[in-house]
Amino acid sequence: MLVYGWHSVKAALENPKRRIRKLVVTENALRRLQQSGTGLPVEPQVVPPDGFLAYVPADAVHQGLLAEADPLPAPAIEDLKPEGIVLVLDQITDPHNVGAILRSAAAFAVNALVTTSRHSPEATGVLAKSASGALEYVPIIAIANLARGLEALKARGFLIVGLDSDADAALSAVPLRLPLALVLGAEGKGLRQLTRTTCDVLAKLALPGRIQSLNVSNAAALALHIASARLSHALPA
Amino acid sequence: MLVYGWHSVKAALENPKRRIRKLVVTENALRRLQQSGTGLPVEPQVVPPDGFLAYVPADAVHQGLLAEADPLPAPAIEDLKPEGIVLVLDQITDPHNVGAILRSAAAFAVNALVTTSRHSPEATGVLAKSASGALEYVPIIAIANLARGLEALKARGFLIVGLDSDADAALSAVPLRLPLALVLGAEGKGLRQLTRTTCDVLAKLALPGRIQSLNVSNAAALALHIASARLSHALPA
Repeated sequence: MLVYGWHSVKAALENPKRRIRKLVVTENALRRLQQSGTGLPVEPQVVPPDGFLAYVPADAVHQGLLAEADPLPAPAIEDLKPEGIVLVLDQITDPHNVGAILRSAAAFAVNALVTTSRHSPEATGVLAKSASGALEYVPIIAIANLARGLEALKARGFLIVGLDSDADAALSAVPLRLPLALVLGAEGKGLRQLTRTTCDVLAKLALPGRIQSLNVSNAAALALHIASARLSHALPA
Repeated sequence: MLVYGWHSVKAALENPKRRIRKLVVTENALRRLQQSGTGLPVEPQVVPPDGFLAYVPADAVHQGLLAEADPLPAPAIEDLKPEGIVLVLDQITDPHNVGAILRSAAAFAVNALVTTSRHSPEATGVLAKSASGALEYVPIIAIANLARGLEALKARGFLIVGLDSDADAALSAVPLRLPLALVLGAEGKGLRQLTRTTCDVLAKLALPGRIQSLNVSNAAALALHIASARLSHALPA
């Protein structure tokens, strides 16, 4: 997979579990990396800025750094410890949104992101860039059958809470406990029927204004904040 | 300006203050509009799907609807009632982010968005699409000098709270009151120095995880939620 951009590449280089195959940098970026004290696991290829066109589209904000890396080993749901919060995405595919969600997941110390989505290599680069390093901190568990994955989480003790704008109760008011799985659907489509019926609880974000739906990454950040705040007494500091 | 996509065009058509110059639709989209009961202020031009290439890039998600419209009349800061919450953006330029922020602003009943950013016509289309109709609900006040704009808000009684990840206090803990202006800076750069010193209070979002900054639209949604929840006793229902 490709990783580009300052935060994403720096975080990948600093992750001992990340196997880097190739590192392509501008002279400036190399100097900046060296000044930051980041160790380089492979000999960097120093190229002029237009040397990046061989790897990424012209509009990719690579900031003079790009790495080819192996994906991180993906844990299985069965390996997830029954603790904390996990985030589950039901067919959310836009890599900018998934990247931003991953970033918020890292900011709220989420233990894993469970997703059905498959991304093209190019989309993976966009995702990594939008995640701003969070790919290194939050394991992604990609599964073929989401309903079965939710059942596996339930069997491990997770409470499954689906976000649904048509729900009667607000996330700030439904009973919550750890371990918790928060499930979000794609904008417009929402949770699929089978996902919905597999959830233990459906809840909405209570919004006071004239628009009743948010960008999905904004909704994820809000849901994580509300759940984390309500469960903070039981979450590790 | 161009507006495209189902929610954006439908909201524009339903906004009596929005002057529509031209409406371009596919047959399918026209039928859907008519079924939804939306009135058409101009005679629509019905085109095949590739007819949109004359107006927007091939990757624009127009969903078969596009309108050319006049921008809404922009209010002046001096016309803002000293009540509720306004959101202020300090040089945030990415139209996807500004659009998502506008959408959250509408969801949290924000009274206005104050911004320094100027957008190209193409970016405006992306912004309108990302805003998903919110352009019709939240007035945008674009000003040349943000610090002067903040002083004008102060003079009208607004408390100016700047979001700053280096601040000591959390937004959930600083004293807040209405009317309130929440100020956000661009990712990476944050608030400019003059913006920072013009704020009455600086506050951060308290994040428990390993990443300490969010996508800016996620940060905006979170800040709006926290402020709205804390001031809900004083905000109109």
